[in-house]
Amino acid sequence: MTFEVTILGSNSALPAAGRHPTSQILNVHDQLYLIDCGEATQIQMNKYKVKRGGIDHIFISHLHGDHVLGLLPLINSFALNRRKRPMNIYGPKPIRRFIEHQLECTHSVMPYPIHFHEFDEGYSGAVMEDESLTVYSVPLDHRIPTLGYIFTEKEQAPHILPEEMRKHGILFDKVPAIKSGESVLNDKGEQVQAHQLTRPAAPPRSYAFMSDTRYNPALASRVEEVDLLYHEATFLHELIDRAEKTKHTTAREAGEFASAARVNKMIIGHFSTRYQNLTPLLEEAKNYFSETMLALEGRTFEVHQKDV
Amino acid sequence: MTFEVTILGSNSALPAAGRHPTSQILNVHDQLYLIDCGEATQIQMNKYKVKRGGIDHIFISHLHGDHVLGLLPLINSFALNRRKRPMNIYGPKPIRRFIEHQLECTHSVMPYPIHFHEFDEGYSGAVMEDESLTVYSVPLDHRIPTLGYIFTEKEQAPHILPEEMRKHGILFDKVPAIKSGESVLNDKGEQVQAHQLTRPAAPPRSYAFMSDTRYNPALASRVEEVDLLYHEATFLHELIDRAEKTKHTTAREAGEFASAARVNKMIIGHFSTRYQNLTPLLEEAKNYFSETMLALEGRTFEVHQKDV
Repeated sequence: MTFEVTILGSNSALPAAGRHPTSQILNVHDQLYLIDCGEATQIQMNKYKVKRGGIDHIFISHLHGDHVLGLLPLINSFALNRRKRPMNIYGPKPIRRFIEHQLECTHSVMPYPIHFHEFDEGYSGAVMEDESLTVYSVPLDHRIPTLGYIFTEKEQAPHILPEEMRKHGILFDKVPAIKSGESVLNDKGEQVQAHQLTRPAAPPRSYAFMSDTRYNPALASRVEEVDLLYHEATFLHELIDRAEKTKHTTAREAGEFASAARVNKMIIGHFSTRYQNLTPLLEEAKNYFSETMLALEGRTFEVHQKDV
Repeated sequence: MTFEVTILGSNSALPAAGRHPTSQILNVHDQLYLIDCGEATQIQMNKYKVKRGGIDHIFISHLHGDHVLGLLPLINSFALNRRKRPMNIYGPKPIRRFIEHQLECTHSVMPYPIHFHEFDEGYSGAVMEDESLTVYSVPLDHRIPTLGYIFTEKEQAPHILPEEMRKHGILFDKVPAIKSGESVLNDKGEQVQAHQLTRPAAPPRSYAFMSDTRYNPALASRVEEVDLLYHEATFLHELIDRAEKTKHTTAREAGEFASAARVNKMIIGHFSTRYQNLTPLLEEAKNYFSETMLALEGRTFEVHQKDV
């Protein structure tokens, strides 16, 4: 089943160097989740053919403009397209007041409800749960209240083995019971254990989004062994002073973090506009964590488990 | 001297059909003025190589999202680029509250002052004056308080005729006096009239921006004989009901308006997303005003006077 993330924007601060501010689309079992929404996110959606109508949940990391100023345009466009389904928006306070004030000033009439899920600074816990996914927040270390998000796939039911079903003489109306782990009776009245009729589903996969943040090794345990980590890497390590001052992370530090957290793979992004060529950032991070990739716009990354 | 307008966006409502929401750059004597600022205006500026640092005045017609949601991203980028010069923003109330609330919520620190020039609904009068230009507002007829703007070039000093200067034996240190119309003494102590030494400058040119608005013939006298008129033409006339309901104008009505106002040329824009192909809108308007052009993005229109 699908579990992949598409990069819509990966530049820091402003649109430049041909790149756009932060935004990503996570696709989990064909449900779309939007993560951050910098300016022109909806234009990037047009470009990369994202079926935006399928988005019911938007996760905002923090209220710096390059992560949130595409949100009102997107909300307005949903209204113009006569959306009816509720939209859920998750983020640090005061995201509700920020959006509602803009809606009021722009005389926007909303034909669909927006449910805000606001969190206090430092909130760490579950923020969303649906059929396929649980989402947790991780407080990041930035200049203003900022949340990272961990998207964890729910455990899936085991796969039925049709051949074993026939062999044991089990009718297919027993599938729901078997999938939930119950033992069932065969046509001779004998009990058959669920595990004899199934093979386990793949273990749940996970994606962690960490931007913007100062490098913080203490957070590594929070994202330990996630299958895919997005970590910001705004600067090369030669600009460590600037990273410390602005509460960002260098490519080297992102590599060290991924390595300490023993994640499977990492994408780095939130590149400073000063880097037209991103290869030095990639090379620097790879020296510390070889499975690093660049968050290039339009690129889709499948979330894979570690090969055992 | 330069007097031209460059279209950055001309779609209505939202970015679609490969077009962007409303924004234009007016260049008068190499000073840039921004008119409306829909989402991604600064990205369009990057694309069309607009030297945004030269903008000191931004005119907003109204607070619908497609005319104003690119403003905070632009303001933020100026801050990131360490702008020091003040910025002037003109528009209907509550534009100041709209921007200041967003600045507060996004923790934006402004290294330059923003001067707001807010106008009450229906305000009609001068809104800005500088060396080259006077700008007047025209209250438009839309669903919310909306202002059109007329940009009128100031009368320029007459051109000195060097040959006449020599013939009359006038030294060039007299140029400022002559340009301001004074008579001067030649090397024989005789009075020479300024008009003998100069030819008059071209008469002042004017550009009127009218979007969004319901077709309103009563406004024609306000923009009578402007050299270039931008008028919205959201729909074909077959959708006149929709134009009336949403307070927009049809292409036919825009043509009728330009004709009644006896303008020199007209650009139509603010096209409904339903029109992938704009030719029918152009053809319809041209039936009523032959000097109509389409506001295509990236296109620059010089403001010309009527050929006498």
